Amino acid sequence: MNITVLGAGLVGSAIVEDLTQEIDFCVTAVDVNPAVLQALTAEIPVRRICADVREPGRVAEVVADADLVICAVPGYMGFETLQRIIEAKKNVVDISFFPEDAFLLDDLAKAQSVTAVVDCGVAPGLSNIIAGYVDTQLDALDRFLCYVGGLPAIRQWPYEYKAVFSPIDVLEEYTRPARFVEYGQEIIRPALSDPELLDFPGVGTLEAFNTDGLRTLQRTLDAPFMKEKTLRYPGHIHLMRVFRESGFFDAAPVDVGGVSVRPIDLTSKLLFDRWRPQPGEEDFTVMQVIVEGERAGRRVRHTYDLLDRYDRATQTTSMARTTGYTATIIARQVLRGQFTQKGICPPEFIGRTPGCYADLLAGYAKRNIHLTETIVDL
Amino acid sequence: MNITVLGAGLVGSAIVEDLTQEIDFCVTAVDVNPAVLQALTAEIPVRRICADVREPGRVAEVVADADLVICAVPGYMGFETLQRIIEAKKNVVDISFFPEDAFLLDDLAKAQSVTAVVDCGVAPGLSNIIAGYVDTQLDALDRFLCYVGGLPAIRQWPYEYKAVFSPIDVLEEYTRPARFVEYGQEIIRPALSDPELLDFPGVGTLEAFNTDGLRTLQRTLDAPFMKEKTLRYPGHIHLMRVFRESGFFDAAPVDVGGVSVRPIDLTSKLLFDRWRPQPGEEDFTVMQVIVEGERAGRRVRHTYDLLDRYDRATQTTSMARTTGYTATIIARQVLRGQFTQKGICPPEFIGRTPGCYADLLAGYAKRNIHLTETIVDL
Repeated sequence: MNITVLGAGLVGSAIVEDLTQEIDFCVTAVDVNPAVLQALTAEIPVRRICADVREPGRVAEVVADADLVICAVPGYMGFETLQRIIEAKKNVVDISFFPEDAFLLDDLAKAQSVTAVVDCGVAPGLSNIIAGYVDTQLDALDRFLCYVGGLPAIRQWPYEYKAVFSPIDVLEEYTRPARFVEYGQEIIRPALSDPELLDFPGVGTLEAFNTDGLRTLQRTLDAPFMKEKTLRYPGHIHLMRVFRESGFFDAAPVDVGGVSVRPIDLTSKLLFDRWRPQPGEEDFTVMQVIVEGERAGRRVRHTYDLLDRYDRATQTTSMARTTGYTATIIARQVLRGQFTQKGICPPEFIGRTPGCYADLLAGYAKRNIHLTETIVDL
Repeated sequence: MNITVLGAGLVGSAIVEDLTQEIDFCVTAVDVNPAVLQALTAEIPVRRICADVREPGRVAEVVADADLVICAVPGYMGFETLQRIIEAKKNVVDISFFPEDAFLLDDLAKAQSVTAVVDCGVAPGLSNIIAGYVDTQLDALDRFLCYVGGLPAIRQWPYEYKAVFSPIDVLEEYTRPARFVEYGQEIIRPALSDPELLDFPGVGTLEAFNTDGLRTLQRTLDAPFMKEKTLRYPGHIHLMRVFRESGFFDAAPVDVGGVSVRPIDLTSKLLFDRWRPQPGEEDFTVMQVIVEGERAGRRVRHTYDLLDRYDRATQTTSMARTTGYTATIIARQVLRGQFTQKGICPPEFIGRTPGCYADLLAGYAKRNIHLTETIVDL
């Protein structure tokens, strides 16, 4: 079977390496940057295409012989790339996390009879799958709460944070108001609000704060309480609030000695140097999802804990592992016909499909990613 | 007697108002900004001259009939203005706190038979006078330590600081390496280093850090241990270290989307808005000077504590009171011939002159500024 991976960056390369383990997969990696393609391990059997998929007709060309496409391009070009893949009638698993509403492509995907799984990483991704899965286990799901963070193993003063993507995208998380749901109503709070300290076994104390991370769940899950919070080492968000409140994240230009500068541009430039992970720098992913509801007349709480670490053997970051392997496992479910729903499918649809959740856990376990489930009566 | 005050800003205006209380003083205020001159209380008997003393010959012109000049211009133009005053053969008390070495003008001042008291504020200023005074009280002075800060009475997140001058001058304190003396050797440490928490009665806990504030004392006081530290509310210097270490105080230009910007310029611009005191905003000045040495074979410690607050009746900031009134009291000592030394005279020379220290305390007391002295045997 032919699989084309668009984007062979940090996550894309982990996806390519995972797929090429499968003897009957023929994998093609596409990237605009030849250095990125050259960096793919020389021994792995992958066809390398250097191309800019933003060029007209280029997506149709590179996915022409694909049985499935995995889209791992940067977020800002994700929506349009996904549209081109769907127009080419190709099933697709997307981890570009674009800001647009994926459901705008739902009619197109259905008309093309295409399965387009979007947001297929960790959170969004695994967190949505858990929501969908638990929804099928309960008579009524009324509370969904997700804490998630990707952090460097070594804490370095003062930020104790490293950004895999451009800091300007991270800073967006620190400025965009956070939407969540309480008593069935949408609540909008400033980013970085409602800090709380939480202890995670094996990690220590982290600080959680509101981020705008519910995405499709706000539309697809009928629960009166839903919230996503991001995790950082304590102190990080204090600094981010100081920067934000002092105007360093402002996008409006400021006159500085006769030249016009957007403070956010200088800030992200200065922080980029400090937030860039060093080669081989170890990270981990921590996530806790709490889902509550009713089953057979009793209130229950399902808690899911994930703690995944950098893989020293393959030098693969935890961020790439947890995001990329979720995408490759779901891609296999689509390829083998285990998940067949047409249209735009956020991961909660996969969680609702019998067998898919268990298969995902089995796939994780093979890759040494362990999700623990705890169920208690309340 | 004619007194000319160059600069009628925040401190200059307090100086003018103090001098005009004296029936036999004829006071002239000179400023480049007409608004500043108009802001001087209408009732006070002062001659107002709007002039730019940077223009050639202008200083000589405006000080021509003066018996004494008080120089309260901005620091960057202080040295040259002082030179012009000395060339005009006028005794002068200077609070411009210029960065250049004042002693470069010592020969000129002596040749002109001029008394030029420099650095005549609180610290430098009062702290130097204390050092000079205690030096005359001890057989040997071996330790001088000064803690000083001017702070807003109301603490406002996140900086809990207001800058009376341009933030870029304050940021200079946070970047210029601090020089102090230990075991007779000059020690150079980074700015913001060696933070320590100290409790001040009536104020609470403040945080002290090294600043480059010894100035003339390093040359004029033969003590093996000398140090000055600046006080801020706890947490301020943490933020300043984060900014500095992240490059926001860098003076080297950075390319931001094609335009070249000095980070320090954007930073001081953004902080200026947040650090500007609001009209009527209350402040206080806190200072503790500790001097140790030998007297009659015993080790003694002299401790001097100052806590001065905003004057609501006259709406005068504590910073203007403590700086300006030190200058006006010393000016009177020069005018009445109590202090007659010629040349460049840092305030420690005044402290060493019999009677001057007691006269200063009496002058302070009249203006409701109280310095307490505590002497203990060690």
